[in-house]
Amino acid sequence: MREFTWSATEKKAARAAFDLALARELKAARQEAEAILHGSSDDRALWRLHDYLSDKRREIDQKYDYRYSVLMLVFPRLVSEGWIKVDELAGIGAEKVDVINKLMSLR
Amino acid sequence: MREFTWSATEKKAARAAFDLALARELKAARQEAEAILHGSSDDRALWRLHDYLSDKRREIDQKYDYRYSVLMLVFPRLVSEGWIKVDELAGIGAEKVDVINKLMSLR
Repeated sequence: MREFTWSATEKKAARAAFDLALARELKAARQEAEAILHGSSDDRALWRLHDYLSDKRREIDQKYDYRYSVLMLVFPRLVSEGWIKVDELAGIGAEKVDVINKLMSLR
Repeated sequence: MREFTWSATEKKAARAAFDLALARELKAARQEAEAILHGSSDDRALWRLHDYLSDKRREIDQKYDYRYSVLMLVFPRLVSEGWIKVDELAGIGAEKVDVINKLMSLR
């Protein structure tokens, strides 16, 4: 993939957007965990919760990769999954936002 | 270890006691899971919960081994950990209960 440059200000905006998306996904995961735990009183609910958390942890560890070399792959995924809006990425630079918008329009 | 014989009635009592201990331990694990989830709002609570469930699942899978060849190792452990009382094991046979009582007195 093409290389993008990141000014100090853009890096700061990128970090904030990244953290915001992660916080939202963790909040949703917590709500799902509570739903699994409280949605059923059978004994297996605990292990269903464990399976859910195992999958979610692996997914989040893999997805939230904050390296500038891959961030322009990470952000489109976070947008497409609904964890961040393109508007909230304005600070990362107009050129990069354009690329993300183009990627989104191709879906 | 010495071999024990199990009559049909004793097997039934053993199964009921085993299941009772497991149900109690799962109930306690569920309460602990809820405490972890609700005790903290920080992002890492979800992964602490995952770690707790990973350990507990491994422990329970290993501990609750219902084979008659090992049950007289399993029951003393369940008694010592408080998941079942010796009184509740009465149905497995006086000789076996004596052995468990002797093991408990040695602790």
